Amino acid sequence: MRKLISFCLFFFCIAGLQAAINIKRIDPAFWWCGMKNKELQIMVYGDKIGDAKASLKYPGVTLEKTVRLDSPNYLFLYLNISDNAKPGKMTIRFDQGKEHTSRTFELLQRNGPDRDYTGFDASDVLYLIMPDRFADGDPKTNVIPSMRFPAPVNRNDPNARHGGDLQGIEQHLDYIQNLGVTAIWLNPVLENDMPGGSYHGYATTDYYKVDPRFGTNEYYKGLIEKCHERNMKVVMDMIFNHCGSEHIWFLDRPSKDWFNFPDGYVQTSYRLTPHFDPYVSTYDKNIMDMGWFVESMPDLNQHNPHLMKYLTQNSIWWIEYSGIDGIRMDTHPYVFFDSMAEWCKEIQNEYPDFNIVGECWYNTEAGSAYWQENSILDKTRNSHLKTVMDFPLQGIVREAFMSQTDSWTGLNKIYDRLALDFMYSDPMAVLTFLDNHDTDRFLSEEPDNLGFFKQAIAFLLTTRGIPQIYYGTEILMHGNKKESDGLVRLDFPGGFPGDKVNDFIAADRTPLQNEAFDFIQKILKWRKGNEVISKGNMTHFMPTNGIYLYQRKFKDKRIIVIMNGNDTAKSIDMSRYKEILKPGEGGIDIISGEPFICSPRMEFAPRALYIIDMTP
Amino acid sequence: MRKLISFCLFFFCIAGLQAAINIKRIDPAFWWCGMKNKELQIMVYGDKIGDAKASLKYPGVTLEKTVRLDSPNYLFLYLNISDNAKPGKMTIRFDQGKEHTSRTFELLQRNGPDRDYTGFDASDVLYLIMPDRFADGDPKTNVIPSMRFPAPVNRNDPNARHGGDLQGIEQHLDYIQNLGVTAIWLNPVLENDMPGGSYHGYATTDYYKVDPRFGTNEYYKGLIEKCHERNMKVVMDMIFNHCGSEHIWFLDRPSKDWFNFPDGYVQTSYRLTPHFDPYVSTYDKNIMDMGWFVESMPDLNQHNPHLMKYLTQNSIWWIEYSGIDGIRMDTHPYVFFDSMAEWCKEIQNEYPDFNIVGECWYNTEAGSAYWQENSILDKTRNSHLKTVMDFPLQGIVREAFMSQTDSWTGLNKIYDRLALDFMYSDPMAVLTFLDNHDTDRFLSEEPDNLGFFKQAIAFLLTTRGIPQIYYGTEILMHGNKKESDGLVRLDFPGGFPGDKVNDFIAADRTPLQNEAFDFIQKILKWRKGNEVISKGNMTHFMPTNGIYLYQRKFKDKRIIVIMNGNDTAKSIDMSRYKEILKPGEGGIDIISGEPFICSPRMEFAPRALYIIDMTP
Repeated sequence: MRKLISFCLFFFCIAGLQAAINIKRIDPAFWWCGMKNKELQIMVYGDKIGDAKASLKYPGVTLEKTVRLDSPNYLFLYLNISDNAKPGKMTIRFDQGKEHTSRTFELLQRNGPDRDYTGFDASDVLYLIMPDRFADGDPKTNVIPSMRFPAPVNRNDPNARHGGDLQGIEQHLDYIQNLGVTAIWLNPVLENDMPGGSYHGYATTDYYKVDPRFGTNEYYKGLIEKCHERNMKVVMDMIFNHCGSEHIWFLDRPSKDWFNFPDGYVQTSYRLTPHFDPYVSTYDKNIMDMGWFVESMPDLNQHNPHLMKYLTQNSIWWIEYSGIDGIRMDTHPYVFFDSMAEWCKEIQNEYPDFNIVGECWYNTEAGSAYWQENSILDKTRNSHLKTVMDFPLQGIVREAFMSQTDSWTGLNKIYDRLALDFMYSDPMAVLTFLDNHDTDRFLSEEPDNLGFFKQAIAFLLTTRGIPQIYYGTEILMHGNKKESDGLVRLDFPGGFPGDKVNDFIAADRTPLQNEAFDFIQKILKWRKGNEVISKGNMTHFMPTNGIYLYQRKFKDKRIIVIMNGNDTAKSIDMSRYKEILKPGEGGIDIISGEPFICSPRMEFAPRALYIIDMTP
Repeated sequence: MRKLISFCLFFFCIAGLQAAINIKRIDPAFWWCGMKNKELQIMVYGDKIGDAKASLKYPGVTLEKTVRLDSPNYLFLYLNISDNAKPGKMTIRFDQGKEHTSRTFELLQRNGPDRDYTGFDASDVLYLIMPDRFADGDPKTNVIPSMRFPAPVNRNDPNARHGGDLQGIEQHLDYIQNLGVTAIWLNPVLENDMPGGSYHGYATTDYYKVDPRFGTNEYYKGLIEKCHERNMKVVMDMIFNHCGSEHIWFLDRPSKDWFNFPDGYVQTSYRLTPHFDPYVSTYDKNIMDMGWFVESMPDLNQHNPHLMKYLTQNSIWWIEYSGIDGIRMDTHPYVFFDSMAEWCKEIQNEYPDFNIVGECWYNTEAGSAYWQENSILDKTRNSHLKTVMDFPLQGIVREAFMSQTDSWTGLNKIYDRLALDFMYSDPMAVLTFLDNHDTDRFLSEEPDNLGFFKQAIAFLLTTRGIPQIYYGTEILMHGNKKESDGLVRLDFPGGFPGDKVNDFIAADRTPLQNEAFDFIQKILKWRKGNEVISKGNMTHFMPTNGIYLYQRKFKDKRIIVIMNGNDTAKSIDMSRYKEILKPGEGGIDIISGEPFICSPRMEFAPRALYIIDMTP
């Protein structure tokens, strides 16, 4: 049990009598003056601390109440931090019978109103990195013997830890920045002290601590500062639905209702329709909201107000402490709707321009759109979630771009999906992606040419939404989940000691890889700061004879994208496009740099692709 | 051209001088006093009649204006029929230079407020009949030599006329009533005087005349009266989007803008997404609204107010004249949204309880729901269409009931579709069906057992919505459209002279056919007047281990439906259903007539099906 207490004490000075009162952790370790929400919860964990009486004296701060739950080992303090409170250290005293002890708790100065909490939006492109699989910057931290479960590193096992870390990411910020993305989203970096290693990071065992195999809290904060210096943002992956089964909460439950289905493992149905199903049974609703994702990840009950407060405060702590620019919330709809809405609202209240993307994994536009803030689909409640992931689009991109386009197939799938955008309250704010760590890679297998790939990338980067690119896409990493999730989370070649090939450098990449990298880089650099993409309205034309054409327009700027969704040449009467493109009109194709001039009838090469800057 | 003038004159007395003024038709032939809408349009067609001056004198009636369009052969009179107007005959005089002529136009007494215009709803079950293919009651009318295109009858050709008629339907009303449906929907019965015969009836050449091969207007009216005497309703199929290319309007266009794309055939894209696509191009919008369905069916331009008035008035005429209980509107979304909304509103204004079902053929719930009255999906406009066809459900029923049910397949498709019912403003008012004349039959091939078939029928008849059964389903008619639409519109065996088998009688049906017939009949008779079905709310449970269970409940009545979506036996812990069904509880299975009592764990036979009346 001793191993469970850890870095939190770093910020505390142990004071008072060395008594039998044994405080093992205090969450959060510190807080700030001047937050909009004046209520601060402090969770104190220690042997029988629940029976202690807490007290404090500090100007502008009052202890409003203390709460003891079922376990005698937790005490929840609720403080009011008034506007009059100044930064400084307060002493909290705990009395238990004849014994007492004290802890120092610090209130820090906030970073101030000039801090930039602008979140992320359609002007950004996110680069998704699975930290264990990107680059191993510090092999010394691959195995931490002091952890309860010091998992071995085995790069031959797709389900084991491979040794990637934050230092590895930092060492390749040049590469990432040079690629042209504006933000990185890291899969979870918090402690996963779990049997087997939990390389993916989704089984949190400490909500306030970066996993030591990835680095430290300070290193994480420093990495974010370095990204900010490069004008790059960082999105933090969080998980509220569940924690790891080795979390202290599960080993010593604060209260019986801290977890859903407390009497034993009941699996979720993985079906999220009960949120809106008008015929839903209570049974199915409960299985969805309260069933466990897997047995090693117990399902947290956010209807326990002390837990809810803890989690919300934890998010705010990370924003304030580390300076992250956004949050990606895992399994967002597996939590109660009202809890997630409350959480989003709390974050918005504290940071109005911040952004959160929820993993609302629905195959239907209706499901996805239901979860976006101000959804037209349910006026009785509001998720307050600005960004949802466009899984319905992701679900069809491979078929859309890899098949031939006739009357209903190929690019028509894209056309039909976008036509349903009227269901989104804000289609510009959805996260668009070809793949991520949970799906097959867009390139399920190694390609022998890049025609459809370039079209898919161009589409992703020139339509509505906030694009996200999964690490390695730019060097044609490929794979599918048939045998293991790990096969879509392979190591970035060159990121690990002993790698024979280093795909971070052009010289080591194949010609096809360089073609892909250069193509993506060119569009990303052109896209950056380009308001016609991040703010422009869109007009598209039903694919005809295989040709799909759309326009983006903002003020006096406009671009026209044309693609031939076939492996054969196609010709078309251009008069259908005359409302935006007349014969004789044209611009510069930003891919080739060559002029494109419209003629009455045009022939398009197999998989032709143009991004034409029409700005006069 | 003489052949084109026809029955309309029946109601007219030719009066006045025998002059060169040659009036060939007047639409409508008569009208009623006391309609809510006081404006009556009379379309007069005749050589150069457009240049005539019209006048009339009748107490309470004024001629407000006359309109001549591009063709000199049309004159549109607009009358105001005030509340003071009494039934009787008025004389309308036409002066043209020195010549003049007169026509008598009759105002009839309305059937009065006691007439039942209740429309149809979830308490009904519609039986869809293609008149040419059901029964030939009067072979003498199979070919009408006086028609312009007296098409031959050839029952060996799936695309030719087969000779079915209204008399054939009337002769089998006993059969239909005995089956247990409450309404019949006939595919269009109006004149289709077209080359090739146009057996399906969707190429109207006279909006005021029943096709003489089917019968006469009077016969149609009489058939409806006979149905009403049996407490059965009749739904009339109408088509506004297009007429047949042999319609007088197309041969002699009233105005250039009477048809869309007047300069030549432009095909519709058959894509209806432009109605709501936020990125739609004007080009795609126009192709949808204005493109022609096929070349032989020119696309009417309802934005011409004279045409729109004509069509609306025609609908009201048929309701008032024949006593139909509902309208099925063909290709509803191929017409301008505002025009169809205006039409629905006009009908609702005159007959508030009447019902219309629009053929809104979308594969997505979003598309379908978009068109229902008071849709949540677009608050800026209202279709005023109470009933849409649930094509999204129809699109998955075969796969849902014919495959095995595991975690995501089989009956899960049904569960997932119903979960999206929150998008419908009124799911109880959607038309549900397994197939119709435009789709493959539910039974694509001849079945060798009825397990899945009975489940599909039971589902159709016990869930929300207004069920529609396609003729012959009850005798296991099967087929698909691969080779010809006609193969899903085969003749009802026994309906035609010389048929060796008469499936209208049990003795001629195979045991499997009788099993199907008896099953459907039993549920239909039980369903009739059963408010738990027509008004009850619904609760369902996600299929688990292949078992799908749902409840309908209304006041103190409730039923529970259970089905095993597998060809193998499945057992299940029934405790999951305890909120509606506890061990020891039960009722009578209306299929077997046997008691059903819930036990803690139950085994269900392959394709087990129970409809349990739980009413105490």
